[in-house]
Amino acid sequence: MKIVIAPDSFKECLSAQEVASHIASGIRNIVPNAEIYEIPISDGGEGVLEALINGVGGRRISVSVMDPLMRQIKAEYGILKDEKTAVIEMAKASGLELLKEHEKNPLLTTTFGTGQLIKDALDKGCTKIIIGIGGSATNDGGAGMVRALGAKFLDDKGEEIPEGGGGLERLKTLDLSNFDKRIQNCEVVVACDVSNPLTGEKGASMVYGGQKGGSKQDLEFLDSNLAHYANRIKANLGIDISHIPGAGAAGGTGAGLMAFLEGKLVNGIELILQTIKIEEFIKQADLVFTGEGKIDGQTLHGKTISGIAAMSKKHKVPVIVITGKIGDGIEEIYNLGVNAVFSIVNQPMELRQAMDQAPELIRNCSKNIMAAIMCTNKN
Amino acid sequence: MKIVIAPDSFKECLSAQEVASHIASGIRNIVPNAEIYEIPISDGGEGVLEALINGVGGRRISVSVMDPLMRQIKAEYGILKDEKTAVIEMAKASGLELLKEHEKNPLLTTTFGTGQLIKDALDKGCTKIIIGIGGSATNDGGAGMVRALGAKFLDDKGEEIPEGGGGLERLKTLDLSNFDKRIQNCEVVVACDVSNPLTGEKGASMVYGGQKGGSKQDLEFLDSNLAHYANRIKANLGIDISHIPGAGAAGGTGAGLMAFLEGKLVNGIELILQTIKIEEFIKQADLVFTGEGKIDGQTLHGKTISGIAAMSKKHKVPVIVITGKIGDGIEEIYNLGVNAVFSIVNQPMELRQAMDQAPELIRNCSKNIMAAIMCTNKN
Repeated sequence: MKIVIAPDSFKECLSAQEVASHIASGIRNIVPNAEIYEIPISDGGEGVLEALINGVGGRRISVSVMDPLMRQIKAEYGILKDEKTAVIEMAKASGLELLKEHEKNPLLTTTFGTGQLIKDALDKGCTKIIIGIGGSATNDGGAGMVRALGAKFLDDKGEEIPEGGGGLERLKTLDLSNFDKRIQNCEVVVACDVSNPLTGEKGASMVYGGQKGGSKQDLEFLDSNLAHYANRIKANLGIDISHIPGAGAAGGTGAGLMAFLEGKLVNGIELILQTIKIEEFIKQADLVFTGEGKIDGQTLHGKTISGIAAMSKKHKVPVIVITGKIGDGIEEIYNLGVNAVFSIVNQPMELRQAMDQAPELIRNCSKNIMAAIMCTNKN
Repeated sequence: MKIVIAPDSFKECLSAQEVASHIASGIRNIVPNAEIYEIPISDGGEGVLEALINGVGGRRISVSVMDPLMRQIKAEYGILKDEKTAVIEMAKASGLELLKEHEKNPLLTTTFGTGQLIKDALDKGCTKIIIGIGGSATNDGGAGMVRALGAKFLDDKGEEIPEGGGGLERLKTLDLSNFDKRIQNCEVVVACDVSNPLTGEKGASMVYGGQKGGSKQDLEFLDSNLAHYANRIKANLGIDISHIPGAGAAGGTGAGLMAFLEGKLVNGIELILQTIKIEEFIKQADLVFTGEGKIDGQTLHGKTISGIAAMSKKHKVPVIVITGKIGDGIEEIYNLGVNAVFSIVNQPMELRQAMDQAPELIRNCSKNIMAAIMCTNKN
């Protein structure tokens, strides 16, 4: 019996790898000799590195880069086993997770460190860069990143503008004469699950600037700076990024990647599932387990479960979902290709208890599900 | 696909019939043409009437009888479809449920009404009486019941002693000359799940007298009265009931049934399962669902689940358990013959919420279990 276990993480509780491992352990209670493939999945953003390194194989590299406030830190990225594909999570160099609460300031924070990671990947000969842009602390339109690759952002006196979303106000001209030429021969794929435009009410600043530390006044200033940035790019490069869906991702890093690196924005979960070639495993499987910490009708689409289910449905492989919380409106899940959904919660309890006991609850739940699946087979 | 659904009630939440019906509804979502047998089970005591009428077929009869305080009430019993077997729940005539809190008084309460139900069954030609003795309000050793069938309990002046456990103090002689002769040709089977002796520290009065309204002083008095009662029975009938396990059930009604009606005490769940001939259904089934409101290692034995599981194991039919709460120490359940156990709880929540939403939660849980069971069959 071949079983693929491909869950997302249970957020703030267990990593995807841990979830997969506990499910496998539960299953082995019932079918000790099952041929189990544990393929932990991240739905993009901050977990893409783990998902791809685990799914495809590869190595992690630690590099000195600048953090969002231009302080030297160590940040990791990955090179997959083809030695040509780099996997970068911008949060590792330019993420909110690197800042204390009082340090958050989208006027100052920069994507410079992300650019340094890209440069390091180019230095190591990579010709494809997969970049997950979730969790950024920035609102600079990716300007810092592009500067790290050699571009110069100049004001009307020909001087370089400051790092950060606040400095973009002064941008006049772009000098790409020293911009890294290797980018032209490098495919840049961006894992991105938001479709916000660069500016306006649904733009990067207004929607995400607040959680990055911006005041209401800051957000309006940042929004107008990004509009100005788009204008200058259009004037200098002839590229109009102002209305492209996803340009507003990661404080406008989506826009920067598209304008300067010819980045192609793709749905995170699809990118990951394709890159790790999970379909090869699924199509040979008798059964697929997937799961997330919680599911509901609102968040069903574009997540690990829906991606795994679609692929499994195509190959007529049954899918079991394990989750902590089954929210409202999940009937649609059955149309996506999921056969059955189970909560790990085994009695009335508080969230805290469910999270504390999650490993055991996942093992027990998986065991009982597997026993149910096998019970008529034995008969 | 033949499926037997044989759950107990979810106490204080749903009747066994309701639970069975919701499970069936969930299953039909996945296997619309399943041949489903809903056989709600009560584990004896107060639910034996419903369990047997539903399981075997029969009719309910309403009779005027005396309640525990000798007030006229209507009480129900059943006659199964063979028209020879009566099913009586003593609680219907002599139960705590008939009294207000301040009316509870084991010195006065009598089993007289239970005897009247037996007499009515004999009047209707029954030759077998199944009697469930849970929930009694009495501590009279079954004396009232026996008196309703014609026996006289006399004091040293030859006068009848008062009803109730308090009056037994004065018992001197038994006059059985008018005791209903039809009892001799009637098989009396007593569904009883306790093994308390009639008297002493683990006897009827000391263990159960308190919840029937007795003070500590009352309990000692009642205990000594039951000891006296046993002595008089031994002296008059030559029967020693003082040390028989179960004699202390229902305030000594167990003793009365054994001494005067040749009642045979049997385990409630086994009696019910045998009477409803559920084994005939189980042995032809492909799958059995059972369940209770909650399960844990302590309460596992002698309950619906263990009875159903044992019978199913014998015929190698898989068993799925559905419950509200999976408590600690239930590993033993798998040895009893249960394949898999699921909680209906689908996310962290409070008990109140789980009970309020139980119908929907049971339906959803059953649906997903059935989907899991079928998922590899479809493949």
